[in-house]
Amino acid sequence: MKGKFVTFEGPDGSGKTSVLQSVIAHLEKAGIDYLETREPGGNRIAEAIRKIILDKNLTEMDARTEALLYAAARRQHLVETVFPALRKGKLVLSDRYVDSSIAYQGAGRRIGEEAVAQMNDFATGGLVPDLTLYFDVAPEVGLQRIKKHRSNEIDRLDIEPLAFHETVHKAYLKLAQQESERIIKIDANQPLGNVINDALSQLSDKLPTFFVKDSF
Amino acid sequence: MKGKFVTFEGPDGSGKTSVLQSVIAHLEKAGIDYLETREPGGNRIAEAIRKIILDKNLTEMDARTEALLYAAARRQHLVETVFPALRKGKLVLSDRYVDSSIAYQGAGRRIGEEAVAQMNDFATGGLVPDLTLYFDVAPEVGLQRIKKHRSNEIDRLDIEPLAFHETVHKAYLKLAQQESERIIKIDANQPLGNVINDALSQLSDKLPTFFVKDSF
Repeated sequence: MKGKFVTFEGPDGSGKTSVLQSVIAHLEKAGIDYLETREPGGNRIAEAIRKIILDKNLTEMDARTEALLYAAARRQHLVETVFPALRKGKLVLSDRYVDSSIAYQGAGRRIGEEAVAQMNDFATGGLVPDLTLYFDVAPEVGLQRIKKHRSNEIDRLDIEPLAFHETVHKAYLKLAQQESERIIKIDANQPLGNVINDALSQLSDKLPTFFVKDSF
Repeated sequence: MKGKFVTFEGPDGSGKTSVLQSVIAHLEKAGIDYLETREPGGNRIAEAIRKIILDKNLTEMDARTEALLYAAARRQHLVETVFPALRKGKLVLSDRYVDSSIAYQGAGRRIGEEAVAQMNDFATGGLVPDLTLYFDVAPEVGLQRIKKHRSNEIDRLDIEPLAFHETVHKAYLKLAQQESERIIKIDANQPLGNVINDALSQLSDKLPTFFVKDSF
């Protein structure tokens, strides 16, 4: 595939989605052809799967069932949206990808990180991001930001106990260490402006074709 | 787990479901505690997943998406129905299980048998049947039987070309050879009465606790 696949990872409250919006503003200004996406990505099969996952009445759902459903939605999103864009040579920016499943389902829900990684390989056909920006924030800081800024839309994962978020945090750190070539850790405890600057600086270092330094 | 897990495998038209009903009649007569089941097994999460898989409008569904959805439904069925029955020491009889996915999705849909087997390991947590009866029938014979007996309910797989069914057949034969300890091949080209006798004879050989010979 000719394009580049960049993923944004980290907990809610890490600022990753705000950074992604800033990155996109820069790409727009520079006239770069990109695709911004996040799972389930608007295709009708993945949306139907998502409805089952998010149905709060289905409390009997097993953790592995949930992980398989996320992987099924991911597969369909890749086939319909991401693969075609990469084949066209586009820069694809995705808010979350497999690392989220490894951290939240593998570690957080205790299925096992290796098992979730392997199962997701089936879904992705082995598509690994060219670059991953991991926004590292202390769990307490991330949760405080969520409570402050989005009290109306706190989801299931946000209300897990702090221990859950600490487990997820450790899993992300382990991934960043194991795959230090692919995953760039960005200090997201800083004020948002600094986080954005760090992200843009890393992107122009690693993907100079798409991120020309002068355009910042 | 204390119980025993027996699966019935083979194409539609192999007579496996009729044999299963005969086996159950014998168990009833002998007063043996058993659970007869087939996926999705009536649980509401698996049924919701099944609705997506069987929705004929969703023609864009990728083969791997479909395989992941089947595995998700399988997982939930195991957790809600099969594991509890096995823990109680029951004999569990299932119409189809992982071998079907390997043959139909892995071989038939060309995802790859090993990949489908591994992904299903995630779903099953490694639960392998204690015994599998594989009803082996020549593809042409199986298809003719379907056309003759159930013209009103021919499903998507039945209308695949003969080459697809031949690929599935070869995959089943390969599995039976690779796992000859677990999988007993029964000649299902014979008249149904003989197939039933062969199946009952194998069951009483392999699982004498549940199938007492004198009761036949």
